[in-house]
Amino acid sequence: MKRYRHPSLRTVTFETAMQALSDPGRVAIVRDLLKAQGQEFACNEFPGTLSKATRSHHFQILREAGFIRTRVEGTKCMTSLRLEEVEKRFPGLLQLVHKL
Amino acid sequence: MKRYRHPSLRTVTFETAMQALSDPGRVAIVRDLLKAQGQEFACNEFPGTLSKATRSHHFQILREAGFIRTRVEGTKCMTSLRLEEVEKRFPGLLQLVHKL
Repeated sequence: MKRYRHPSLRTVTFETAMQALSDPGRVAIVRDLLKAQGQEFACNEFPGTLSKATRSHHFQILREAGFIRTRVEGTKCMTSLRLEEVEKRFPGLLQLVHKL
Repeated sequence: MKRYRHPSLRTVTFETAMQALSDPGRVAIVRDLLKAQGQEFACNEFPGTLSKATRSHHFQILREAGFIRTRVEGTKCMTSLRLEEVEKRFPGLLQLVHKL
């Protein structure tokens, strides 16, 4: 079974977080997860029109920057936002994503 | 005389701002300008150990993202932070730069 690595937010630099949010596709993913208020999404049921390859690439970058968590459930992967951890590490950043 | 273009902050996207802050050298420049509390720096007297070419490159990206203003004074160029405009467009972002 595939396992995903999730860094501790303590080890995520400000610059890494900024890099992760420098792409409109990734910002849209984070915004959709914010709107979902903690709900998990099956990766293949994620809203939007990104191709599977592009979405997977964006998910990987967001995961490595500590923004999202992915867990495997049977044949599905389920993704959610690490809301509280990101808010603690970068206070106010997600509010900017939500507003803009 | 060389003139620099400065975008209206309204036209700067969130992603462009994130891209500008995705490099440690640029974050250091913004942090130094924040510490200077509005003071202008002559470009060639800027703190730090960046080469002139690297510093100019970083200044250009920060200028295009609306973070800094550069004006020519005789043979010098003077750079300052667009503090109030950035704070209005991206509330709390500079505070993150200052803290982290």
